[in-house]
Amino acid sequence: MSLPDTPRSDPTGDLLSEPHHDGSPLYLDTESPTLGWTVKVRVRTAASDPVQQVWIRTTYDAEPTYHPCTVLEHDEHTTWWQGDLPVHNPVTHYRFLLSYGPEQGGRQRWLTAAGMVEYDGPDTFDFKVSSHEAAPAWTRDAVVYQIFPDRFARSSRADERPTPQWAVPAAWDDEVAFEGTDPHTPLQLFGGDLDGIVDHLDHVEETGANVLYLTPVFPGESNHRYNATTFDEVDPLLGGDEAYARLAEAVHARGWHLLGDLTANHTGDTHEWFVRARSDPASRTRGWYYFHPDGAYECWMGHGTLPKLDHTNDEMRRTMIEGPESTVARWLQPPYALDGWRIDVANMTGRLGAIDVNHEAARAVRRTATAEKHDAWVIGEHNHDASQDIDGDGWHGTMNYSGFSWPVWSWVRAHETPARPFGRPVAVPRRPGPLIHRALQEWRARYGHRASAQSWNILSSHDSARIRTLTRDPARHRVAAGLQFTLPGVPMVFAGDELGLEGVNGEDGRKPMPWGHRDAWDTATLAAYRTLATLRRDHVALGFGSLRWAYVDDDCLVYLREHPAGSVLVCARRAGGPAVALDAGLVGLTDGSVLAATEPGSGSPLKATDGTIELPAADGAGFWVWQL
Amino acid sequence: MSLPDTPRSDPTGDLLSEPHHDGSPLYLDTESPTLGWTVKVRVRTAASDPVQQVWIRTTYDAEPTYHPCTVLEHDEHTTWWQGDLPVHNPVTHYRFLLSYGPEQGGRQRWLTAAGMVEYDGPDTFDFKVSSHEAAPAWTRDAVVYQIFPDRFARSSRADERPTPQWAVPAAWDDEVAFEGTDPHTPLQLFGGDLDGIVDHLDHVEETGANVLYLTPVFPGESNHRYNATTFDEVDPLLGGDEAYARLAEAVHARGWHLLGDLTANHTGDTHEWFVRARSDPASRTRGWYYFHPDGAYECWMGHGTLPKLDHTNDEMRRTMIEGPESTVARWLQPPYALDGWRIDVANMTGRLGAIDVNHEAARAVRRTATAEKHDAWVIGEHNHDASQDIDGDGWHGTMNYSGFSWPVWSWVRAHETPARPFGRPVAVPRRPGPLIHRALQEWRARYGHRASAQSWNILSSHDSARIRTLTRDPARHRVAAGLQFTLPGVPMVFAGDELGLEGVNGEDGRKPMPWGHRDAWDTATLAAYRTLATLRRDHVALGFGSLRWAYVDDDCLVYLREHPAGSVLVCARRAGGPAVALDAGLVGLTDGSVLAATEPGSGSPLKATDGTIELPAADGAGFWVWQL
Repeated sequence: MSLPDTPRSDPTGDLLSEPHHDGSPLYLDTESPTLGWTVKVRVRTAASDPVQQVWIRTTYDAEPTYHPCTVLEHDEHTTWWQGDLPVHNPVTHYRFLLSYGPEQGGRQRWLTAAGMVEYDGPDTFDFKVSSHEAAPAWTRDAVVYQIFPDRFARSSRADERPTPQWAVPAAWDDEVAFEGTDPHTPLQLFGGDLDGIVDHLDHVEETGANVLYLTPVFPGESNHRYNATTFDEVDPLLGGDEAYARLAEAVHARGWHLLGDLTANHTGDTHEWFVRARSDPASRTRGWYYFHPDGAYECWMGHGTLPKLDHTNDEMRRTMIEGPESTVARWLQPPYALDGWRIDVANMTGRLGAIDVNHEAARAVRRTATAEKHDAWVIGEHNHDASQDIDGDGWHGTMNYSGFSWPVWSWVRAHETPARPFGRPVAVPRRPGPLIHRALQEWRARYGHRASAQSWNILSSHDSARIRTLTRDPARHRVAAGLQFTLPGVPMVFAGDELGLEGVNGEDGRKPMPWGHRDAWDTATLAAYRTLATLRRDHVALGFGSLRWAYVDDDCLVYLREHPAGSVLVCARRAGGPAVALDAGLVGLTDGSVLAATEPGSGSPLKATDGTIELPAADGAGFWVWQL
Repeated sequence: MSLPDTPRSDPTGDLLSEPHHDGSPLYLDTESPTLGWTVKVRVRTAASDPVQQVWIRTTYDAEPTYHPCTVLEHDEHTTWWQGDLPVHNPVTHYRFLLSYGPEQGGRQRWLTAAGMVEYDGPDTFDFKVSSHEAAPAWTRDAVVYQIFPDRFARSSRADERPTPQWAVPAAWDDEVAFEGTDPHTPLQLFGGDLDGIVDHLDHVEETGANVLYLTPVFPGESNHRYNATTFDEVDPLLGGDEAYARLAEAVHARGWHLLGDLTANHTGDTHEWFVRARSDPASRTRGWYYFHPDGAYECWMGHGTLPKLDHTNDEMRRTMIEGPESTVARWLQPPYALDGWRIDVANMTGRLGAIDVNHEAARAVRRTATAEKHDAWVIGEHNHDASQDIDGDGWHGTMNYSGFSWPVWSWVRAHETPARPFGRPVAVPRRPGPLIHRALQEWRARYGHRASAQSWNILSSHDSARIRTLTRDPARHRVAAGLQFTLPGVPMVFAGDELGLEGVNGEDGRKPMPWGHRDAWDTATLAAYRTLATLRRDHVALGFGSLRWAYVDDDCLVYLREHPAGSVLVCARRAGGPAVALDAGLVGLTDGSVLAATEPGSGSPLKATDGTIELPAADGAGFWVWQL
C-alpha cells in the first residue's frame, strides 16, 4: 500500500451550481427570531437542477417534521424556494431534503450546513437558528486589536516604578527569553503599561481597529498576568486603576470599545482567595477551590500554580461572575466601563471530570455583563471544538482557532517554517484548498452562521506563533489577512502582526512593539490591514452576509459574501495560478469594480463576457475583492 | 447542469488497508471503564502504511490533549499501536492523529469513528467511551421478538369477552382496515390476547428469539393501546393482570426475558389522570399536564387525544417513573417481573419548546428500573438522531431506525415498491453500497460502539412497512435479515417478518399471524431467521466484536466482526456480482468454513491462495458468513 493521494476536489467551479442556504438575510428572515415565531427560509438551486420538491426538515422537541417549500421566484439561472420554519425550540435545527423525479431515479439529496450529502446521515451538520439574543450590533463590523500590556508600549511613568522581586527586568529592545530554554520566560518584564497604550492609540487607529482587547491587567507574579493575585485592582506596574480609567476614557472617546480578560477557570496560587484557602481549611474561600482531604487541590492541566475554581460554589460565583457585586460586573461599571470580557480557558470553566456546570457559568457571566451593559460582548476562549458551548445563551462566540486559524494556517503556511505548533504535538501540515474548504465548511456548520459570525478570526495571538513566521512571505501573510477580514467572523489582530513581527510560538511572538524602529515596519502590510478594516466597515455583507463558495483549487479560494445591501466576490491565491472562469449568471454579476487588492496594482475590474466572468491569472500570492 | 452522479466509492477493497479502531475488545481494554481509570487503546495500521507516529487526542474537560502510542506488535501485514487513554470524563471522547515523515510531505491524517479524514475537523465523529454502566449482559446476544398483542394470537378465552363500545370487531382472517381510507383503523379489534401468546411460544422458539417485547398491554380505547386509560392494570381484553402474569411465567420458564412498552411522553385523553385534570382544574393531576389558562393543553404532535405529560412535575414523576411505587417499578415486580421497558416517544419525553428535562427523565426511568432489577434493560424509542440521548446514563440504546433501518432499506429496496415512507414525506430512495457504508459508519460513529451494539436493528415494526413489501423478493429480504443479525446491534424482529408477511405501512403490516394458513408461510425465510439467531448466540463477535469493513461496491457489502474469542467474515449481496478478492493477510484468514448461507447450497469454504482469498461470484442476492 502507498498512502492514498491527498483528497482534492474537482476544480471545475461546479460549486456555484450547488443548492445553497445559510442563516444570512438572503436565506432567513432573521438571525435571531423570538421563540415561537415562524420564519421564512429560502434555498437557491441552479435553474438547471432538476429538483422537483424541496422540504424543510426540522426537529420539533427532537422529532423530525417536514415542511414543504414552494418556488418563490426563478429566472434562467436560479430558482428560489421558500418555506415556513417554526422556531419551536430555543435553538431550532433544520436541513433540506431535495427530491427528484423518476428521470433522476427518484434520487434524494440533503442540503446540510456542511454541503450536499446523498445519504441519510445524522443531524450533525444541520443548520441551526438561535432564539437567544445575538451579540450586540457594534461587534459585527468590529476589528479587534489584541494588546499584551507588558509588550505594547512604555509610558514615561513606567520608569518611576520599582521592579518587583519576582521579575527579571528587560530593556525594550532586548530579545524575548525563549520558552523551553530560558526559565525566565514568564518573569521577563519589559514594563509596558496602560498609559503607553494611550500614547499609541493613533497607531491602533491606523490599523483600522476599533475594539481594544487587553490580556489581563490584574496583578499576577508574571508578565502575562494569567495567574492573578486579585481581581480587585489593576496591577500598579501597569499604572493601577487610574491608568486603566484613563485608557478606558481615551478608547471610548474615539468611539471604540474596550474588552477585559478574565480567567474564570482558575486563579494564581498567590491569589488572595487561594492564599487564605490554603492556609486555613476553615476559611470562607476553601470551598471556592477543589481541595482534597490531604490538602492537594485541582489545578489547570497539572500546574500547581494555577488552582482551579469550583463553579458549584455559590459564594465564589457571586464574588466572581454572578450579580452586580461580582468581578464581572464591577469592571463594566464606571470609570472603567469595559464593554465586555474575553474569558480565558472558557472551555474548561466549570468542568472537572463528572462535574459540568460550564453552561451555567457561561450564562452567569453573560447575564451579569448584560445587566451592567445591555450591549456587552462575551467571548469564551476555546482553542478547540466549542460547538456545544456557543448556541447563544452563554458566550456569544469563541476565539475561533479551530474553525478559522488552523484551516487557514494549513493553507498559507510555508513549506518550511520554524513556527511551532499550538495545542498539538505537531505543526499543522500544508494542505490544498479543497481540504481547507471542507474544514471551513464543517466548522461553520457546527457553530452555525450566527455564532461563526460572532466569533474571532485569528491569525496570531499571544498564545500562537506569528502569521508572518508561519507564512514566511509578506504577500501570503496579506492573503491570510484577507481571509481573516472577509470570511465570516470578527477579525482579531494581535498587535504587531500589522507590522510583520515574527515569533515561532506564543512567548516568542510577544515581542515589544518596535516603536523606535519604524524603518523595519512592513508598511505595505500595515496598509493592507487598514484597507481590509475599511472594507469590512463599509460592506455589511462582510459582517452579516452569506458565504457562498464559487471555486476552489489547491491554491485558490473564491467565494461570495452576499447581502441584500450589496455583495462582494473574494479571490484568495496562496500562489500564482491560471485565470478562473465563473458562470456569471450563477454569481449574479455583470460587472464588478475592484474594492481591494492586497498586492498594489494587481486588481482590475470584472466584466461578464458570453455569460462568463474571468478572474485574472496571477503570478504569485494575492487577494482581491470585487463589488458586485 | 446535470445532477452530479450518485457518489460511489472505488471498489478496490482498499478499505482493508485503512487504519482501524473501535470500542471492541481488540481495540479497547474495556467497553465500560470506571471513571478515573486509564485504559489501553489500540490502533491497527497496514504494515505498508508509512505512518511514523500515532497519537491519541482526547478532550480533558473540553481541552484537547495528546498521548503518544507505541508499536505493540507487528508482522508483515499489520502494525498494532497502543497508548494510554485517561478516562477523565464520564463520557470520554478521543480520536487518533497519524503523522507521516517528509517523504509523505509531512502529511497528517485523523482516524475518527467515521473513518479517515485529512483535515482538522470538528469532534463530531470522535470515538467515545462511556463510564456509565453498560446494558446487562443478557441483552447482547439477545434476539428480540416484537408482538402487537391484538394481532398475534387469540386464545380460547378471548371468545368469552364482550366487545367494548369503541371497537369494531374483526374476524382473524379479515383484512386490516387501511389507514387513510378507513377511519376504523385504530378501532378494528381482532382480539388477540396474552394467553394466545402463551399458546404460541413454541413458534417464537422456532425463530430463535429469546426476548419478547409486547407493545402496550394497558387498556386504551384503541387496538394499539398507545393511548392508555390507566397504567395500573392490564387490559381485560388481553386477559388482564392474571394473563400477564401467566405470560411472564411462561416466558421466564424458557429462560427468556420480557419487555413492556410505556409511553412516558403522553397518555390518552381518556386516561384517569387526564380525565380528572381536565374536569377539575384544582385536581392533583392538573399540573401533570401542560394546561394553558384557556383550558387548552399541549399534546403529541397536535393530537388532542394524546395530552403531553409534564416531567417537571415531581408528583407525576414519582407516580410514573421515579421510585418503587411508580409505574416503571411496579411492573418489574412479581408476578410480572418485566425485565425492562421500551419507552415510547422517548425522544420527545420531557421536551417542550424551551423545556428540556429529557435526560433527567431517562435517568429516572433507568434508575428506577435498575433498582428493581439490577439487570433491567431500557430502550428509548427515537426514530431519528438519538446521539445526544444515549451516552449511557439514561436509555441503554434506541430503536435504531436511523442508523440501521433506513440505510439498509435504501440498499435492499425494490426499484418499485408500494411500501410507504415512515417519518418522512417520501420513501427512502434506492442507493448504492458506498452510500450505505458511509451512512452506517456515520451513525455508528455518532452513537459510539457500545450504544450502537445496545440498540435495536429493525427491519420492520408496528410503525413501518414490512421488509418483505419493501424488498419484494424473499432472497433480498433474507439478505436484509443477515445484516440485521450481523451488523452491530440487537435484532428486533416484528412478528410475522419471519413468515414473509407483507404491509405497505405500519397499520397495514399489523396483520394477524396466519396460524391457520401454514401453507402460505415462507419456511425458507423462517429457517434463515433461526440460523441467524443461532449464529448470533454462538459467536460472541456478533454481540461484542469490532466492525471492520473489507469491501464495498454498489451491490456487495463485505465486513469482519472480530473478537479475541473468534471472528467472522460477512458478505451480503443485494444482487448478483463477480467474485471479490481480498488480501488474506489483512483479513487475517488462511481458511474459513461456512457458518451460514441464507440461500441453501450457495456457500463454500474459503481458502487463501497466493495471499488472496476470493469470495465467490453470485448469480443473485445472497448472504454468507464464514468463520475465520
